[in-house]
Amino acid sequence: MGVKVSVAGGGSTYTPELVEGLLTRADRLPVDELVLLDPDPERLEIVGALADRMLRRVGWSGRLVLTDRRDEALEGADFVIVQLRVGGQTARLTDETIPGRFGFIGQETTGAGGFAKALRTVPVVLELAEETARRGAPGAWFVDFTNPTGLVTQALLDEGHRAIGLCNVAISLQRRLAERFAVEHDRVTLDHVGLNHLTWERAVIVDGKDRMADILEDPASYPGADDFPPELIRMLGTIPSPYLHYYYFPSEVLEHQRTHPSRAAEVMEIEAGLLELYRDPSLDEKPKLLEERGGAFYSEAAAALVASLHAGTGDVQVVNVRNAGAIPNLPDDDIVEIPARIDRDGAHPEPTAPLAWEMLGIVQHAKAYERLAIQAATTGDRTVALKALIANPLVGDYAGAAPLLDDLLEVNRPFLPRFSASG
Amino acid sequence: MGVKVSVAGGGSTYTPELVEGLLTRADRLPVDELVLLDPDPERLEIVGALADRMLRRVGWSGRLVLTDRRDEALEGADFVIVQLRVGGQTARLTDETIPGRFGFIGQETTGAGGFAKALRTVPVVLELAEETARRGAPGAWFVDFTNPTGLVTQALLDEGHRAIGLCNVAISLQRRLAERFAVEHDRVTLDHVGLNHLTWERAVIVDGKDRMADILEDPASYPGADDFPPELIRMLGTIPSPYLHYYYFPSEVLEHQRTHPSRAAEVMEIEAGLLELYRDPSLDEKPKLLEERGGAFYSEAAAALVASLHAGTGDVQVVNVRNAGAIPNLPDDDIVEIPARIDRDGAHPEPTAPLAWEMLGIVQHAKAYERLAIQAATTGDRTVALKALIANPLVGDYAGAAPLLDDLLEVNRPFLPRFSASG
Amino acid sequence: MGVKVSVAGGGSTYTPELVEGLLTRADRLPVDELVLLDPDPERLEIVGALADRMLRRVGWSGRLVLTDRRDEALEGADFVIVQLRVGGQTARLTDETIPGRFGFIGQETTGAGGFAKALRTVPVVLELAEETARRGAPGAWFVDFTNPTGLVTQALLDEGHRAIGLCNVAISLQRRLAERFAVEHDRVTLDHVGLNHLTWERAVIVDGKDRMADILEDPASYPGADDFPPELIRMLGTIPSPYLHYYYFPSEVLEHQRTHPSRAAEVMEIEAGLLELYRDPSLDEKPKLLEERGGAFYSEAAAALVASLHAGTGDVQVVNVRNAGAIPNLPDDDIVEIPARIDRDGAHPEPTAPLAWEMLGIVQHAKAYERLAIQAATTGDRTVALKALIANPLVGDYAGAAPLLDDLLEVNRPFLPRFSASG
Amino acid sequence: MGVKVSVAGGGSTYTPELVEGLLTRADRLPVDELVLLDPDPERLEIVGALADRMLRRVGWSGRLVLTDRRDEALEGADFVIVQLRVGGQTARLTDETIPGRFGFIGQETTGAGGFAKALRTVPVVLELAEETARRGAPGAWFVDFTNPTGLVTQALLDEGHRAIGLCNVAISLQRRLAERFAVEHDRVTLDHVGLNHLTWERAVIVDGKDRMADILEDPASYPGADDFPPELIRMLGTIPSPYLHYYYFPSEVLEHQRTHPSRAAEVMEIEAGLLELYRDPSLDEKPKLLEERGGAFYSEAAAALVASLHAGTGDVQVVNVRNAGAIPNLPDDDIVEIPARIDRDGAHPEPTAPLAWEMLGIVQHAKAYERLAIQAATTGDRTVALKALIANPLVGDYAGAAPLLDDLLEVNRPFLPRFSASG
Repeated sequence: MGVKVSVAGGGSTYTPELVEGLLTRADRLPVDELVLLDPDPERLEIVGALADRMLRRVGWSGRLVLTDRRDEALEGADFVIVQLRVGGQTARLTDETIPGRFGFIGQETTGAGGFAKALRTVPVVLELAEETARRGAPGAWFVDFTNPTGLVTQALLDEGHRAIGLCNVAISLQRRLAERFAVEHDRVTLDHVGLNHLTWERAVIVDGKDRMADILEDPASYPGADDFPPELIRMLGTIPSPYLHYYYFPSEVLEHQRTHPSRAAEVMEIEAGLLELYRDPSLDEKPKLLEERGGAFYSEAAAALVASLHAGTGDVQVVNVRNAGAIPNLPDDDIVEIPARIDRDGAHPEPTAPLAWEMLGIVQHAKAYERLAIQAATTGDRTVALKALIANPLVGDYAGAAPLLDDLLEVNRPFLPRFSASG
Repeated sequence: MGVKVSVAGGGSTYTPELVEGLLTRADRLPVDELVLLDPDPERLEIVGALADRMLRRVGWSGRLVLTDRRDEALEGADFVIVQLRVGGQTARLTDETIPGRFGFIGQETTGAGGFAKALRTVPVVLELAEETARRGAPGAWFVDFTNPTGLVTQALLDEGHRAIGLCNVAISLQRRLAERFAVEHDRVTLDHVGLNHLTWERAVIVDGKDRMADILEDPASYPGADDFPPELIRMLGTIPSPYLHYYYFPSEVLEHQRTHPSRAAEVMEIEAGLLELYRDPSLDEKPKLLEERGGAFYSEAAAALVASLHAGTGDVQVVNVRNAGAIPNLPDDDIVEIPARIDRDGAHPEPTAPLAWEMLGIVQHAKAYERLAIQAATTGDRTVALKALIANPLVGDYAGAAPLLDDLLEVNRPFLPRFSASG
Repeated sequence: MGVKVSVAGGGSTYTPELVEGLLTRADRLPVDELVLLDPDPERLEIVGALADRMLRRVGWSGRLVLTDRRDEALEGADFVIVQLRVGGQTARLTDETIPGRFGFIGQETTGAGGFAKALRTVPVVLELAEETARRGAPGAWFVDFTNPTGLVTQALLDEGHRAIGLCNVAISLQRRLAERFAVEHDRVTLDHVGLNHLTWERAVIVDGKDRMADILEDPASYPGADDFPPELIRMLGTIPSPYLHYYYFPSEVLEHQRTHPSRAAEVMEIEAGLLELYRDPSLDEKPKLLEERGGAFYSEAAAALVASLHAGTGDVQVVNVRNAGAIPNLPDDDIVEIPARIDRDGAHPEPTAPLAWEMLGIVQHAKAYERLAIQAATTGDRTVALKALIANPLVGDYAGAAPLLDDLLEVNRPFLPRFSASG
Repeated sequence: MGVKVSVAGGGSTYTPELVEGLLTRADRLPVDELVLLDPDPERLEIVGALADRMLRRVGWSGRLVLTDRRDEALEGADFVIVQLRVGGQTARLTDETIPGRFGFIGQETTGAGGFAKALRTVPVVLELAEETARRGAPGAWFVDFTNPTGLVTQALLDEGHRAIGLCNVAISLQRRLAERFAVEHDRVTLDHVGLNHLTWERAVIVDGKDRMADILEDPASYPGADDFPPELIRMLGTIPSPYLHYYYFPSEVLEHQRTHPSRAAEVMEIEAGLLELYRDPSLDEKPKLLEERGGAFYSEAAAALVASLHAGTGDVQVVNVRNAGAIPNLPDDDIVEIPARIDRDGAHPEPTAPLAWEMLGIVQHAKAYERLAIQAATTGDRTVALKALIANPLVGDYAGAAPLLDDLLEVNRPFLPRFSASG
C-alpha cells in the first residue's frame, strides 16, 4: 500500500525541489498521496499548480492535495515534513535587523534572531506534532526542517514525539568535498559533529580513508572554503560549518550587517521572482533560479531520510537526534547533529569521538541556551526569555539584551500569544 | 611541635594582612617558623621589617626568615601559601591594556588578560609545587591564592599535587551580607557555586534560614550590590560575583576601559604609597591604606584555611576543589569553587543542587577554556594557545584573537620560556 | 489696535506655557486675537479648552480661535509662532532608534535623526512662511521654534522670509547661572556663540563683570553642570551647550542609547499624562508636570521675543539670525545663534570675538551639513541627501550612511513627498 | 655655478629614488654638491654608498657628502629637501597602534597618529628651517616631504620661512589616470583641491578637455580606483584621495586595523630587506623592491619641483602653498594643496572654483585642527594638545581623547622635550 506524505508549509518556494526529490525515489518510497498544507491560498495555488505539472510530466498516478486544513493534511499521514515559517519573510527581516541596534548579530537561526524565530516556531511545531500523533498513521514520522532545527527537534523529542530533525549543511559539504576529491558523493562520508548550525567536520572519509590531511595542506582547495581563512581551518584541524562564521568573526559580521541590506530583503526579491516563474503554465520542472534561494540539497536530504525510514535501508545520514551516548562527553538526552543509521525504527546515532575542548565549551554553552529558549517559547515566561538571551553565546550582554527583548516581543506580538497572555 | 609556613611572593604588600591573620589564630595554628620568599630584595627587606615589627609587638617567639632561596623556604614547610605575581604590576598593565586594541576586555584574571597571566603563572606555580612535594614536610599543603586561582588549582590537581585554591569573593560577600542582616558573620552561610570568578550565591542562610527572598525584594540593600542593576539580580534569583560584570556588561566595561586608566596603574600608585608607609620604623601594625589595595579578607581566608587544615576542624569554607559529584551536572574532575568541609585530609565538597541552565552553559564554556589554557601554558604550543583564546567566552572572535595572541606572546616573552623555545 | 498671534502646532502640550508667557507680557504685547492652528482635532480641543480656561481666569478680553485651517489662522496675523512637529512623536521615535542599527547616534535635532527631521520639516515650514507672507499683516513676523531651529531659520532667511529662530538653551543657562550667582536672571548676560545646539558660553557677565573664572574654578558649581566632567569645561574655558554631549562623548552616548529606551518613548508617556491632566475641567493653570516635558523657558523666550519685536524695546536676546559680520571668522550669510538687539526691524546681532579653533572647525563642518540638508529637503534629491549625511560631523561614515538613508527615506515616506516623487 | 642640494633624512631608503630623480634633470638642475644628512651612521653609510655607486655609474662630476652635522649640510645650500622621520618606524608603530585601544583609527599622517607625528616633527623641522635661513645660500628653498606635510608647511610659512610642501598623491593619480586614458602623463592635468591628504580631483583634463564624465560612467576604470565603491565616486562626482578612506569608512578601517598587523610592522620588514639589498656592492641602480615601500613618484615630484624652482620654468605642479585667494571660500593664509605655477619666486596657486559643501566642511574642520596641533607642537601646552585632538575630525570623542593623549605623550616622551618641560 502507498505512502501519504504531508508537507506543512507546502506553499514554500522550496516545494518544487522537494517534489523532485520524492519523485526520484519512487522505487523505495511509493508515495500515493502528497498533501501541501499552507495557510496562504495564493502561494498554495501557484506552488501547487507547478507541483501538479511536475508530477503529471512524469506520469505520477498518486493524489495531490492542496489544503489549508490541518486535520485533512495530517489524517492518516505516514510522514509529515515541516518547512513552515511563522511570520514569513517579514518576521525574518526583523530577526535580522533589530538585534543590530543593540549591538548584536542579526541572523535567522542563531543569536538573537534565531531566538526570536524559536519563540515563534516551537509552539506551532509542537501543536502540529501533537495533532500528527492523534491523526497520523500508526508509527507516523515527523520530519522537521524548520529552523532552528536542532532546538525545535530538542523540543519535539523532549515532548515524546516521533521526530527527526534535518539540515542541509552536512549534505552540502559532502557534495562539495566530493567535488574536491573528484569522486561520486556517495563515496564520501563525514565525521560531522556538534549541534545544528554549530558543527565541524573532523574527518572526510573518501573510499574509507580519512583525507583531512589533504584538506589542511590546502584549506582553500574545496568549493566553499572561502568562508574561512586557511589558517583558521588549519589551527582547528577541522572544517567548521559556515554558520560558525558568526562565532569566529562576530565583529566582522556586525560591520558587514551594519553596511548591507539584510538577507531577508534579498530573499524577498528572489521569492517574488520565483513565484513569477512558477506562474508560467509551461513550466513543469524545478527552475534554475531556485538554487539562489539557498537551501541547496534540502529536498535531497528530506527525501533520502523519508525513503530510508520507510524502506528501513539502514544507511547512514546526518540528522538531529538524541545523543544517547554517541558523543561521550555530552549528555544522553541532548539533541545533537551527527551521522546516524536510519531504519524503520528511526535514527540510531553512530558512536564517535569526544568533542575537543574548543568545540565542547561552545556546544555546551549553546545547548544551555537552547534549553532555556524552549522553556521560554512553551511557557511565554519573560524572565526565562531574558535568561535565554543572556545564555546565548552570541548575545550575553544583559545591558543590550533587556531592551532588545522588549523590542523583539513587541514586534513579534502577533506570533507570540503565550507572551501576550502573560505580559 | 610547631608549624612552618612559607609564603611565596612574601614581599607582596599583602603580607602584613596575612601576618595578622596567622597571629590571631595562634591557638589552632602554632606557627613557629614563618618564611617570606621573594626574588625582589628591596621589597623583601621593607615588607619583612614591618612583619618583624608586627610579630615582635605581640611577643611572638617564632622565627621569621626572609629569603630569595626556594630550597630554604620550602624545606620542611608544612604550608606553602602562594601569592606571587609573575612579571609584577608591569605585566598586569599589559594584561589590562593590550586586549583593548583588539576589541576585547582587559582584565587580569578573566578574558584575554587572565589568559596571559595564566600562561606566565601556571609553569611557575607547578614548579613550586613540585619542589614542595620533594622538600616539604610529609603531608605538606600547597595553598594557591595566585590568580587565575581556579585555573591554577585545576593545573595543580591534574598534576597530582596536594593543593587547595583560595579566593576572597565568597568571604567578602559573606561579610557584606552579615552586615546587611546585622548579624555576626559566622551566622551567615552561602550557597556559593561555580568556577572561581564565575560564581553565584544561590542562597544566603542566616541562622539556618535562607533569606534570599529578602535580598530579591530589595536587591540594592546590601553593601556592594551596586555592581549590578536590581532587575538583573531579581531575574537571576541569585547574587552574581562582581566578576560577572565582565560577562553581563561587556560593552559597558569596554567603554569604561577605553576611557579610564587601568587598574594596574592605580595599584602601582597605591603600592608605592604602601611601601613608603611600611618603611616607617615606628609602624608595627597593618596600615589602614592597605584596604584600598583590594583583596579584602584575603588573609582572613588564607589563615582560616591553613588553621582548619592543621587542626582538622571540620568547618565549612568556600574553596577551589575537585567537584567529585558535588554539583551533579558537572564532571567529577572539574575544579569548582564551592563550600567544602575542611579537615586534615583536605577539602571535602558539600553536595549541592545542579546548576541552572543560565549558569551551566557559561561555566562549561569557561571550563573548556581553562583546560586549553593549562595545556597551552605547560606545552608552549601556540596553536593550543589560540584555541584557548577563541574558547574563552570573553574573546571568541578569531579575527581579533590571532593578532592579539601575537602581541601578548611578544610582550610577555621574558616570562614565557616555553613559548620562546617553540616559537 | 491689538495684535493677532497665531501658533502653528497650537495643539502641542507646550501651548499652556506659551499662553502664560503671552499673558504676563500684556502691557507690552496687547494680544487681542490668539489662534491655535493644528490638524489634530482631539489635541486642539483638549489644549484649546485649557487655554480658554487659563485666559478666562485672568479676565482676558481677546478672541481665542481653534482651527485646522491655515488660511484662517494666518490671515492678518502679526506674529506666527511655529512649534509644529511633522510626523509627531512616532517620527521622533524612528529618528532616535533607526540610526543606532547603523552605528550612529539617534537624536531628534542633531546627527542623522536631526537630518530626518529636517527633511520632514523644512518644506512644511517654508510653505507656512510663504502663506504668511501672502496673508499675514504687513510686516508680520515668523518665529520658528521647530527643530532643527538653526537649519530651519537658515532655510527661511535664504528664501527671503521675515523670520527669527528661537531656542531655549541660552535662556535656560542664564536662569541656571543666575541661580548659581544668586542674582535675578536679568542681571546675567551670556557671551553665547555658535550654531543652534552647537554653542558655548564664553563669558558669564553678572552686573557687568565676567565671572567665568569663578565657574572654571569649580565647574560643578551650577545646576546642570553635571552634563560634563569639570576637566572638560576647564580645558575649554567655556560652558558647552548640553547638546555638545553628542560631539564630545559620542561613544558613551551610543552605549547609552543601545541600552536604554528612546526619549521619544518617554515623552509619549509624559504627553499622555499631560493630556489626561489638561482634560480636567477644573484646571485653569499651567500644570507642574509640564516641566518634565522638556523645553523649560521655551515660552518665556518666545513671548519675550514677540513682545520686544512689537514694542521695539531694543533689549538683547539670544536668537538665530544672520551673522552679518558679528562673528568675524564666519561668513555674513550664515545663520548663527548669538545675542542680538531686538527692535521693530528685527534682530541685530552684537559684534563679538572670533571663534577659537576648537569651536570654529566643528561649527563650519556643521554649517556645511546644514546647507546640504536644506538643499536635500527642498529638492528631494537623494544624492544631495547622501552628501548631507556624510557631511554631518556625527555621521560621516559612508558605509553606514548609504543604507541608513535608504531606511530613513523608507520609514519617512509619508512625510517626504518630494523624495517620493523623485525616487 | 652649480647647485647645492641637501637632504635631511638622507639615510632614508627613499634616497636612491631621489638621487635618480635629480640625475635625470641634470639639464635644468646642475647639482654639483649633494649632501645626505642623517644622525644614523649605519644607514648613512649603506644608503650613501649606494648613492655614490649610482652617481658614479652615470659619470656625475659633483661632490657627494655624507654627514650627521647640520651646519655642514646647510651651509650654502640652495635647496634643503626634508624627508626625516623623528622617532623612526618605531614611533610610527605606536602612532598606528595606540589609538586603537581608545577606539580611534591609527594612521601616521591623519587622525590621532598623525597628530603624534606632528608633535614630534614640527619643532624639528622648524629648527632646521631656521638654521637653513641663517646658513643657506641667499634665496635658499626649503622643500618639505615629511608628513603631515600640509600641517608642517602651515607651520613653516606661518613662521615666515621660504618653504614649499610636497606630496605624491596628485602625481601618482596623474600617472594612473594617464594610464587609464592611454596618454603620456604630461598630457593630463588635474583639478586637485583640498588640504594635504584630504583632497579630491574635480576634473581630469586630458589634452585640454575634462574627462571626468568618462570616469564617472565607469568609476572602476582606472588603476587604484578600488579604494572606493563606484557609487561613492559617482555620488561625489569627484575622485577622492586614498586618504579619504579614513573619513568615509572609519568603522571599516577600525575593524581592519583591529585584525591586521600595522603598516609600520610591514614597512620595518621591507626596510630591512631594502638595506640588505643596498649593501650589495654590485648594485648601482634603484632596486625594484623600493616600489613596495610606498611613496611612488615621490622623488619625481621633489626633483621636478626643485628643477622648476631653479630654472624658473613656470610650469604647473601640485604643491602645498598659501591659498592667497585661489580657493574663494577659504582664507588667504590657509595652506592648501592645489596646482600652482612654479618659478624662481616660488609657487603661485592657480585660481580655482570654490569647494562644494561636502568638501568645505571637512576641510575647514581639519584646518582648525591643524592650527591647534601646530600651536601644541610649538608650545608643548597639554591643554592645547587636547583641544587639537578633540578638534580632529577623526577623533572628537573627549572621553577617549583625554586618556589617549596621556599615552601618546608618555610613549613619545623622548621626542617631545617641550612637553617634558611643561608636564
